[in-house]
Amino acid sequence: MSFLWTVSQQKRLSELNASEEEKNMSFSSTSDREAAYKRVEMRLINESKQRLNKLRHETKRPAICALENRLAAALRGAGFVQVATPVILSKKLLGKMTITDEHALFSQVFWIEENKCLRPMLAPNLYYILKDLLRLWEKPVRIFEIGSCFRKESQGSNHLNEFTMLNLVEWGLPEEQRQKRISELAKLVMDETGIDEYHLEHAESVVYGETVDVMHRDIELGSGALGPHFLDGRWGVVGPWVGIGFGLERLLMVEQGGQNVRSMGKSLTYLDGVRLNI
Amino acid sequence: MSFLWTVSQQKRLSELNASEEEKNMSFSSTSDREAAYKRVEMRLINESKQRLNKLRHETKRPAICALENRLAAALRGAGFVQVATPVILSKKLLGKMTITDEHALFSQVFWIEENKCLRPMLAPNLYYILKDLLRLWEKPVRIFEIGSCFRKESQGSNHLNEFTMLNLVEWGLPEEQRQKRISELAKLVMDETGIDEYHLEHAESVVYGETVDVMHRDIELGSGALGPHFLDGRWGVVGPWVGIGFGLERLLMVEQGGQNVRSMGKSLTYLDGVRLNI
Repeated sequence: MSFLWTVSQQKRLSELNASEEEKNMSFSSTSDREAAYKRVEMRLINESKQRLNKLRHETKRPAICALENRLAAALRGAGFVQVATPVILSKKLLGKMTITDEHALFSQVFWIEENKCLRPMLAPNLYYILKDLLRLWEKPVRIFEIGSCFRKESQGSNHLNEFTMLNLVEWGLPEEQRQKRISELAKLVMDETGIDEYHLEHAESVVYGETVDVMHRDIELGSGALGPHFLDGRWGVVGPWVGIGFGLERLLMVEQGGQNVRSMGKSLTYLDGVRLNI
Repeated sequence: MSFLWTVSQQKRLSELNASEEEKNMSFSSTSDREAAYKRVEMRLINESKQRLNKLRHETKRPAICALENRLAAALRGAGFVQVATPVILSKKLLGKMTITDEHALFSQVFWIEENKCLRPMLAPNLYYILKDLLRLWEKPVRIFEIGSCFRKESQGSNHLNEFTMLNLVEWGLPEEQRQKRISELAKLVMDETGIDEYHLEHAESVVYGETVDVMHRDIELGSGALGPHFLDGRWGVVGPWVGIGFGLERLLMVEQGGQNVRSMGKSLTYLDGVRLNI
């Protein structure tokens, strides 16, 4: 007969960033298991404390803040202009993205008042600003934002209520260069994050036009699109464009080798990947 | 007889960052006024376009993003550790700050669900993390966060629904050094922002203990406190501390010489201080 971790042991070991191997250990007796648990938990707590010491004395900021700064600097270096828009979004702008009652995303939206919600994505705000910038600036116009977005999720290991999006858009490039350009921009973000293993998945959708996902194995790191897009007309903008949205916590999860995505995000229970109740 | 700007002219000139002098011009006839309006509006629009060009080709990011990065780097350099906590706050943690139905701030809180709101301040999250860090780290423990906070405001020229707070805390310093230390920390933030003209206003409150405001003339730039504080016990933490909270948009408004605070914040209608409908 063999024994596995109890449910509460399993939960605690996950919180403490145990490896898959450690989480799948089995034992010939419960006393063996309890002895092993003490040993593994102690080691993980010591590792956590060392990571917190490194935060305190070396890095001085969570990896999510450092990644945000690195990506922003790299994009500015590539000619993109950073913008900063509000978290509170009007129902009207959400509707312009076709996110109305019937849309799959609608039930995940946090509402504040009847006509205000927390943005579930950066795209409506970027469209709003682009409609002015495309009038004022010569093309190509390149902008990006990095900021919090909000979705009611299952709170599974790959999802967060509040997550950090990077959305970049390049508007007004030659139509035939879009595929090449989206590859270059994906590479820029992957290089800056330090993820070597990724590939692009191109798809054609009747509804959404051409889409390009940035994948690490079967994990979606980024979701891209090539315009013109049927939404463009709603904002009074025309012309070819490319854009990609990334979730920074997912990028970190992959870059740091499979940590719980919740531990990498804005949190009260984790600081820079480390569970604080140790 | 003398004529002033019409209400709509006045509003437009304010949006375009006209000086006080320009906003208070008077004219001997309405035709003089209309001619002057055309001239002033044209000049302000040209200045706005030049500012947007500078953003596009030189700075590449709004002043609020640059200030956030400068302040974060300066604080890390002074031994503070940056933290990143969620925007969504539980009613329970808000209550721990004594912000319940009777509190002046309560009516300004944005509610999402019955028991969740948007944080009106960073303090509850910093307390929450400190209760663990004070157990794990030797004192003094120095942390800060820079992030969005939310209050329903009158949307006057000095207030914003969403604003960017910097809150720093140093916990566990000798009690007699608190006044000196809070002056040093205020100076660090003022130096990094580039505001020379400021002073501290010390006050003693029966309810809140010792408070220290960082003032520019009659504008409150920062609000500081010296602990022990009566709230500390609710989080199970003890000992002397100092902390200050700053509104980054106000710092920029003062640093840039009296711009509308709304134009400096996260916005859809302004980009880096410039009205986009030009």
